[in-house]
Parts: sequence; C-alpha cells; structure tokens
Amino acid sequence: MSERKVRFSYAQLNQLCMDAFQKFGFTEAKAKIITDVLLTADLYGIQSHGMQRMVRYYKGIQKGTMKVAAEPEVIFDTPVSAVVDGHDGMGQLNGHFAMNLAIEKAKKIGVGIVTVRNSNHYGIAGYYARMAAEAGMLGFSVTNSEAIVVPTYGKKAMIGTNPQAWCMPADPYYFFFDGSTSVVTRGKLEMYNKMAEPIPDGWALDADGVESNNAAEVLANITQKAGGGILPLGGSDKAHGSHKGYGNAMVAEIFSSILSLGTTSDQTMMNNKSGISHGFMAINLAAFGDKDAIIKHMSKYLQALRDSPKAKGQKRIYTHGEPEYGFVADRKQNGIPVIDKTMTEIYDLCHYLKLDPTRYFGDYQPPKSDGMFNNNY
Amino acid sequence: MSERKVRFSYAQLNQLCMDAFQKFGFTEAKAKIITDVLLTADLYGIQSHGMQRMVRYYKGIQKGTMKVAAEPEVIFDTPVSAVVDGHDGMGQLNGHFAMNLAIEKAKKIGVGIVTVRNSNHYGIAGYYARMAAEAGMLGFSVTNSEAIVVPTYGKKAMIGTNPQAWCMPADPYYFFFDGSTSVVTRGKLEMYNKMAEPIPDGWALDADGVESNNAAEVLANITQKAGGGILPLGGSDKAHGSHKGYGNAMVAEIFSSILSLGTTSDQTMMNNKSGISHGFMAINLAAFGDKDAIIKHMSKYLQALRDSPKAKGQKRIYTHGEPEYGFVADRKQNGIPVIDKTMTEIYDLCHYLKLDPTRYFGDYQPPKSDGMFNNNY
Repeated sequence: MSERKVRFSYAQLNQLCMDAFQKFGFTEAKAKIITDVLLTADLYGIQSHGMQRMVRYYKGIQKGTMKVAAEPEVIFDTPVSAVVDGHDGMGQLNGHFAMNLAIEKAKKIGVGIVTVRNSNHYGIAGYYARMAAEAGMLGFSVTNSEAIVVPTYGKKAMIGTNPQAWCMPADPYYFFFDGSTSVVTRGKLEMYNKMAEPIPDGWALDADGVESNNAAEVLANITQKAGGGILPLGGSDKAHGSHKGYGNAMVAEIFSSILSLGTTSDQTMMNNKSGISHGFMAINLAAFGDKDAIIKHMSKYLQALRDSPKAKGQKRIYTHGEPEYGFVADRKQNGIPVIDKTMTEIYDLCHYLKLDPTRYFGDYQPPKSDGMFNNNY
Repeated sequence: MSERKVRFSYAQLNQLCMDAFQKFGFTEAKAKIITDVLLTADLYGIQSHGMQRMVRYYKGIQKGTMKVAAEPEVIFDTPVSAVVDGHDGMGQLNGHFAMNLAIEKAKKIGVGIVTVRNSNHYGIAGYYARMAAEAGMLGFSVTNSEAIVVPTYGKKAMIGTNPQAWCMPADPYYFFFDGSTSVVTRGKLEMYNKMAEPIPDGWALDADGVESNNAAEVLANITQKAGGGILPLGGSDKAHGSHKGYGNAMVAEIFSSILSLGTTSDQTMMNNKSGISHGFMAINLAAFGDKDAIIKHMSKYLQALRDSPKAKGQKRIYTHGEPEYGFVADRKQNGIPVIDKTMTEIYDLCHYLKLDPTRYFGDYQPPKSDGMFNNNY
C-alpha cells in the first residue's frame, strides 16, 4: 500500500477515542470497552477494524442504526446458555457483555454459549474469543454481517463474510485464529481498488456470476446490491472447496442469527436497522481434566509446527496469533500507524464534537478535507 | 471415473458386513454400529469412507492396531463434558459411544462435549454430527488423522485432513456439512492418480515444498513420509486463505487430540498404533428457547439460499446435506455402487473368513485377484 501513514502513540489514540465516545453519549465505562476493542485491532495490525471505524460508528449513531442508550437484555437463560437482545446497541458492548456471560457460565459449569440478536458491527471477532482465553479457557466468537458473499454457484450475495474466531491459551503465544469464512474481506478489495490493481482470480464474481478481477466493479455492485460479490473461502467451485467456506459461513450464521432467532445476513441492513447477530462460546479447559497439562500439550504441538521444515522460499511457519505479538510490540514502541485519510476524517469529527485535535495530535496537520465524512469506507 | 462399478442392494451389503464384522470377533450389536457408519457413507455417495474400508480394518485388526475387544472408558467426567479413552478400539464404536454420551449430557443440561483419545479411523465425521441432529440437536464432530497436510509455508506434513462436521435439523433437508479442512482428501489424489490425470493447481506440494500437479509423486511422498503433502483449504498462500484451512485443522486438533491429551496428527501411526483422536459436541436447541421456531428459522434461510439467483452456467445452489438426499434415494432404489477392485478384495476376504460370497452376491464374479489385499487403497 502506497498510502501515507502517520504513527501516534497508543496513549494519544486512546485519549481521543475515550473523549469522542463520551461525546457520542457513552459512559466512561462503555467508552473504555469500545475503545479497547478498536485499539486492540490497531495493535494487531488489523486497521480495517480499528479506530478508522469510529467515523462509521458516529454516522450509525446519527442515523439511529446504533443506539447509544441501549442495554443488552438477557431474554432466555439456562446454566449453560443464554439469548441476548442487543436492542440495536453497539456491537462491542453487546459482545463484551455476552462473552462475559459465557465465561461466567463456563466458570461455574464448564461451558457457556451465548447468542445475541439485534446488535451492530462488533469489531474483530477475535477480541471476544481472546477474552475467554485470558480467563484460561477456549474461546469461540462469530458474527454474521451484511450479505456481500455469494453461496457456491450463486450470483447474489446471501451470506456475510461471517468470521469465526477461536482462541486458546498457549506458551509463548496464544493460539488466536480469527478469519472471515470468505476468501477475503471487503477491506482487501478496497485496498486493491485504491491501488488500481486487478484482484487475483478466485476472489469475486461480477453481477452475472462470472469471476471478475475488477475490484471497482465488484465493490460498486456490492454497494448497489446489483449482483455478484465475494467468493467463499475455497473460491468458485467445489474443486477448491468453495462449499467448505460456504459451510463455515453457515456455522457462523447458526451460532449468531439462527439460535437467537435474529436477522440472517441476507436480511441485515434494511430499514435503517443493521440487525447483526453474534455467537460466543467459552469452554473451561478444566472440564477436561488437568488444565495446565492441556495448555502444555497445545504449546508443544504449536512449537513443533513452527519448527517444522519450511517450503521452498519460505523462512517461517507461523502459528495463529504469533504474528500479532510482533505487531503489538512494534506499535507499543513505535506507535500505531493511521492512514492520512482517516486522520482527515478524525479532524472533521473533532471539529464537529468540539474537541481540540491539538490536545491529542499536537501540531500534526492532516490533508485537507473535501467535506465532512465524504470518504466512504 | 472410468472404473467399472457394480450395484448391490443395501440388504446384500448389510448382510455381508454384519457377517464379516462378526467373523472379525465383534458382537452383533457392535457389528451393527460399524456397518451402519460404513453403509451410511456409501448411501451418501462417499465411497472412500464406505465398505471399501472393511479390508483396511481387517488388516488393522490383524496387525493389532485396532483392538476388537476394546471398550471405550470414561476417564474424566462432568455434567457437560467427558474424556474417553478408546483403548485402540474401532473408531466407529468409540465415536458412537462418545456422541451418545454428549447427547445424553445435552438432553439433561443443554450441552455435551466429549473428547476421545487412543482411537482409530472413525469413518465419516458427519455420521456422529447427524446422530445429534436426529436427537433434535446441533451436532459437531471432528477427528484428527495421519499427518498428510502441510501447514501454511511448511513442506512437511504436520496436520491431518482433520474434518469438521456440523449437522442441524431443518426441513425439508437437514443442514449437514462434513468437510476436510484441507483442499482435498487423499482419496481425491488417488482418483486422479488412477485416471493418470494432472491434479489442479493449489492442491499439493512436492517434497521440496513446491506446488505439484503429479498425483503419483505426491502420494508416494506421503506414503514414504518423504516431504510435501496436501495443502490446507485455501491453498499455498495467505492470498487465498491458506492460513484459514490451517486454522480450522487446528480447531479439529484442539477438540480431539489436545483436550484429550491424545496423540497430535504428526505423532499418529507410529509403533503399530494409530492413536487417532476425536471430538464431539451436542447442543440442545431448547437451550436457546423455542426449538421448533429455531428449526423453522433455519429452514427458511436454507430455502432462501436454494432459491437465490444462480451464477452463469449453474442450475442449482445446494445447501449442505441436500445432495445426500438424492444419493440415498438413488441407492435405495438402484443399489449401492461398488467398484470392481473392492469386490475383488471382498471376495478374497470372504474366502479368508470362510464366508460364501454367493450368499450375498449370487453368481456375480469379480475380476481375478492378483493376491490377497495387494491393492493398497
């Protein structure tokens, strides 16, 4: 990516987010949760789900899609499970509440599964899976999302990028696997579009359901719901396992919109309501005996994978979550990179919220704005 | 596939399997379970996991890798979870026992998770997931397997094809998703090898870790553990999501070998012991409220997917499990296809077990054998 980035310290961005979310109307405690989810994404190098989302959330709140005063409500409850109605509140707050509920259940009885309906975009799926791992458990987190992915052999986007995340404690690196069930996310297409480069084969279909290398066209079709969309993990045909990506997207759907009687991906984002659903599971390792021995066993296998012979031209085999440790170390030392365009939006936002940007960013000046929030991510 | 097949009725094959497994030393009740798992695969059109495996199992029993007299033992137990030691018994018997245990727990408390170590090949993962669906639940079944898949950027096979299966009741077709976490299974490579056709790009690596289109070479390397192997779902690089297939393989590993402190895929098949592990989960839909409403909600979404617009050149969008209904109907009416080579082996096996093949197959005569069990599947 040729885009110019500028780095700011975690403390600078944290203060900005805290102030902005409180200006949005959230309590300090809630602002802290939302900020932590966003900045964790930035620390992990997943910028698309980081603080650049703040402007989108602001718009969602202005439109009424995201309700600041909403409180998650438990509408069905058993010792091992619960259904939560998010009442159109922020996805981060619903997600944090629901995963904590799952963890509490798992502490008492070994497993907790919580499904959430009527929520909003919740940031990185992995954040919540990691909450369980930090409590010494195996964590699972899924969400459905706006339908921008086609089912195998279809040409209409009927499923979301529906990520699945798993996290488990291990030494020296947690196992942290967070991935969309599509080949790529919308953010990747946007990146290729910005670079004006053709997207690789096997990523997306045009409006007729034919493979396309034209990111701009695919994105425009997605936005206008004109047909086509991103392909499931495995591409366009069964030969490379398209039905498997599609199947995993359905599993994410089951734990989110199906068990909660929520809105399936194809029905989200209608009538000024997002209707996103999530699913969470916490599994207490002690429910299978010696928790420490299990973590040790996992750590040994992960080490064996990292140590195994490399393919020609490759220097490292990563285990899931390992690269994030490097990202975090870099960003804690050198600051979090933010693209110019995002900074322009943030300065616009500060202006609107009557926050003084120099308080956070000193004499840094972003590129001139061409109108507030005209940049549509 | 150009291979000649002959069809036999379910009743004919069932009788043969029942008699043969009892000759192996299994009780009638156990023979019935093993036979049902195998013939269900054949009814579903998954021949590679059907009765052609019987000869392999016979060899495993002769070698002592599979122990006829073994009984699965619960070595750790909570209301929501259990660890089972399979004591090197048949995978089907351990799997059936463990999923039943998970279902019983889920009936009482909402969820049951059971992990099994020291087992053997258990047939199709989906069989056990479906057991839960038949009890009105969401079912999950995974197994690890001999390491024939490379991790992303690796050239040594360190993970198995590690299938994940999910099954949930729905009308008119259950959602039944059963897939390896690799691009393809070994069986697919064997098919291409038999047809002497090059395998597609993105399926496998040679001994140096370079992509290969030579099925014979890849298979020989796998057998001799000379390096290379099948690629994870998503292929050889992150651009197409290789790390996601690799991640899902790890999830299968966690529920099977890790939670049970069993043998990880890279350590299986050593010292005349297979050491395969499995994992099972049953989730009671009633733990999330109105079970019937949940099933109806799922059914409606599945129907919407099937009804959605088709990609150019495609006539149907399938939902997972739907094609199996067609296979079952065909096979119940027209018989189950068995390839000649398998029939030759089965006649050899009958001869050895002192079973009269004409009792099952009348005057059918298979191609001449070139020595008992010389055909190595």
